[in-house]
Amino acid sequence: MLSARIVAAARASFAEHGWAGTTMRAVARDADVDPALVTYYFSDKRGLLAACLEFPESFTEAVVAAQAAPVRRRGHAFMDTMLGLWEDPETGEILRSIFLTAAHEPLAMERLREAFAGSVLAVVSDSLEGPERYLRASLAASQIIGVAMTRYVWRFGALAELPPDEVASYVAPTVQRYLSGKL
Amino acid sequence: MLSARIVAAARASFAEHGWAGTTMRAVARDADVDPALVTYYFSDKRGLLAACLEFPESFTEAVVAAQAAPVRRRGHAFMDTMLGLWEDPETGEILRSIFLTAAHEPLAMERLREAFAGSVLAVVSDSLEGPERYLRASLAASQIIGVAMTRYVWRFGALAELPPDEVASYVAPTVQRYLSGKL
Repeated sequence: MLSARIVAAARASFAEHGWAGTTMRAVARDADVDPALVTYYFSDKRGLLAACLEFPESFTEAVVAAQAAPVRRRGHAFMDTMLGLWEDPETGEILRSIFLTAAHEPLAMERLREAFAGSVLAVVSDSLEGPERYLRASLAASQIIGVAMTRYVWRFGALAELPPDEVASYVAPTVQRYLSGKL
Repeated sequence: MLSARIVAAARASFAEHGWAGTTMRAVARDADVDPALVTYYFSDKRGLLAACLEFPESFTEAVVAAQAAPVRRRGHAFMDTMLGLWEDPETGEILRSIFLTAAHEPLAMERLREAFAGSVLAVVSDSLEGPERYLRASLAASQIIGVAMTRYVWRFGALAELPPDEVASYVAPTVQRYLSGKL
């Protein structure tokens, strides 16, 4: 699809060069399409950025699937899901570019907040019980995001080098404690 | 100090507008100094960025102080230290701008990696014993960075709202487990 090709090129440009360093014309060139097509699909640079910040459908589906796991195994289910999404070259690149773009685009930061606070935290929190469930979901998110940052975005330390299943085995007990253990 | 005022203005600009959106001239204007002074102190934009990416001395001192705590209380010591640094308006703003700038400047990302992998992880790891100490330090870093991201950089979820001592009480047991518990 042409529009998907344009979005992929735009994602890479926003992540690497930021809002100021991205032009409709350069995106068209990178995507190997006529600049008029970029305008046709996305109107302007703002529309293009909004399209780039859409979380992949597989992301939402995977989070919903993981929260259906039995509570006592949900920590592991979330870690496996997160690692699977980031290890996948396509969704991994999308997530990485959203994380990077969020750092310098208020609109991207807003989207990321919406996606996490509005979707992920709400889904995870709703799947739990008790007055502390929003806190529990927030704590789990802090650990999962910390792994994503060190392993996939900044890429440093032991977590950037281990195979995914080892990372899961070390970190899942933490996520599990946050979801269902003593706080 | 004039150079400190220039660095403060440059930090804000790099964090908000990125490399491409930052000019020596605009930084001089924001700092209310003559543009020639910016060149005098920092030569060029690259030199200015490098100065902006210096971690505050209080950061290094605080990490070194925390790792001197008895092992069984070191999880809490690190969390208190981290929260203290980020809650402080001055160091908090420096750390936040480094995190944001790292997302779109390879040089900033490199610096952040050096600071964490080379300094923080090394200091924490050296203070532990056993063959898993680098892994332990990396796991602790993943949790601490996750809290910094959600509370101070992206600002969402319960951790962005609670008082610092409550955040510490929920998260310190995790850091402690990573440092000295069963993995």
